[in-house]
Amino acid sequence: MKIAIAGAGAMGGRFGYMLFKAGYDVTLIDQWVPHVEAIREHGFKINLDGEDICAKIPIFFPEEVAAKEEKYDLIVLYTKSMQLDSMLETLGSVVTHEDTFVICLLNGIGHEEVVKKYVPITNILLGNTMWTAGLVGPGKIKLHSTGHVDFSELHPNGKEMAKKAVDAFNDAGLNAVYAEDVYFQIYRKATLNGVMNSLCTILDANMHNVGMANGSWQLMEGIVEEFAAVAAAEGVKFDKEEVFESLKSCFDKDGIGAHFPSMHQDLIGQHRLTEIDSLNGYIAQKGKEHGIPTPICACIAKLIHCKEDLLKAT
Amino acid sequence: MKIAIAGAGAMGGRFGYMLFKAGYDVTLIDQWVPHVEAIREHGFKINLDGEDICAKIPIFFPEEVAAKEEKYDLIVLYTKSMQLDSMLETLGSVVTHEDTFVICLLNGIGHEEVVKKYVPITNILLGNTMWTAGLVGPGKIKLHSTGHVDFSELHPNGKEMAKKAVDAFNDAGLNAVYAEDVYFQIYRKATLNGVMNSLCTILDANMHNVGMANGSWQLMEGIVEEFAAVAAAEGVKFDKEEVFESLKSCFDKDGIGAHFPSMHQDLIGQHRLTEIDSLNGYIAQKGKEHGIPTPICACIAKLIHCKEDLLKAT
Repeated sequence: MKIAIAGAGAMGGRFGYMLFKAGYDVTLIDQWVPHVEAIREHGFKINLDGEDICAKIPIFFPEEVAAKEEKYDLIVLYTKSMQLDSMLETLGSVVTHEDTFVICLLNGIGHEEVVKKYVPITNILLGNTMWTAGLVGPGKIKLHSTGHVDFSELHPNGKEMAKKAVDAFNDAGLNAVYAEDVYFQIYRKATLNGVMNSLCTILDANMHNVGMANGSWQLMEGIVEEFAAVAAAEGVKFDKEEVFESLKSCFDKDGIGAHFPSMHQDLIGQHRLTEIDSLNGYIAQKGKEHGIPTPICACIAKLIHCKEDLLKAT
Repeated sequence: MKIAIAGAGAMGGRFGYMLFKAGYDVTLIDQWVPHVEAIREHGFKINLDGEDICAKIPIFFPEEVAAKEEKYDLIVLYTKSMQLDSMLETLGSVVTHEDTFVICLLNGIGHEEVVKKYVPITNILLGNTMWTAGLVGPGKIKLHSTGHVDFSELHPNGKEMAKKAVDAFNDAGLNAVYAEDVYFQIYRKATLNGVMNSLCTILDANMHNVGMANGSWQLMEGIVEEFAAVAAAEGVKFDKEEVFESLKSCFDKDGIGAHFPSMHQDLIGQHRLTEIDSLNGYIAQKGKEHGIPTPICACIAKLIHCKEDLLKAT
């Protein structure tokens, strides 16, 4: 199977490297110049559970791939939310081959709406990533611990490829599961992120401290209720009680609770734009469309956008 | 006129000093031990528009005043919001003499509800302060620029004292105005504070930068709408357009916009508890009582309380 990873940052790098190491024909695609240049010159420097690896994986700019009219069996989308549209646009006919399937594994809700603008629905797979990955700098990533990835097809035509991709990803140790209800998983994860990522970022605190702060639980409940209401309007199954339990498990002082979520690292740490519009911002927007009040998500999303502006995030 | 200032911090210190200097019999009352001790030992150190002054004004703890059963014509309340109740409780019978009037000039909405628990409504005056004052440290304050103060009685019995107090305050250069509609002024100022103080504190930015940040104006409009809705339910006049204009005037880069509001100085600068429950928190609470949705004020108030907790504010 010939696989391209479009968006080969931390998470795309993890998937690309693990598939490459398992013997698949992997091409990385990225638009960040220093990153592409570093990997071309020195290889992809990966620290995997403490072990330093240098992987010689081919990497191209999207324009290069488009110019060559390269053909892939599977293109894994792992751009940042706000770069998804331009990545697909630049790849052009590369993503519209009849035999090319595109799998979207980005964080957050609603990315398939962007993908559908470029790729026929028959060829789209959609999923949810429960792995972590950290970018150290251009050409360098750090990977530790374990995870899994769930996905399925958006249209019956994609079922065979979804099953094949599950097998390939499992070959590579990526713990892939064919998702019986992918939207359930996507909303579940987006809700956890919409609570923890945004509150830890606004309050500049780790998950344990936010969880323990006076009144934060009420805020969290309010955010979850809005995600649940939009899920219901969209016909997506949602298990509020399970979400509440999962949130509480994030407060563990000596475990995951000591961590700052990725949005905090991105915005507060590195002054990078966030994916809030695929999380709370998406819920605020969908709420408006459905006539469902989503004032807390709207307020949180605006505060994050203000903070992006104040920190001149790019 | 024998006047006591209950809560002799920065603003109470300003009023106390200016009345004292104008020849009134002024007593300061405060419960902050290092502050009271510093003033007793070294006098009240005041920097007034650049000039250093040392004023020998008598200062007592509330317990001392209560024990002496001291009698005043007018008690000016200038505690922090959260200290108002305990101040009045400790002063005990000192605030319930038939001939003693109490004037409440604290920032925010709803303080008269606390005052009424201790003082007959016949003897309560209520107002709104448009002066600034800064606490430098125990026994030291810094005062600059000018301002005014508006107030009136809550019950016809207080009208004569309200007029007398206007005269006394004007003697002292405090630019007092007998308020035709004191609640209008209180809501107006509380709305401006409920927007600028809370957003600048959550976003850790000055008024100009918050005003210029992407999406902040929508947030501000949302907050103002909630204050306006609660004002309407409470029968208080509210001029939304004027409030919007006043907000915009806070964004001036080279003027007031360069400043961080007092809540930011208190919470972010000094890790002191805020008066959010007399601003957005009050509106959230009153909204609940009236069945008016006030989700933005509720969200903002909860974020500030979380931040207080995270910073271990006292």
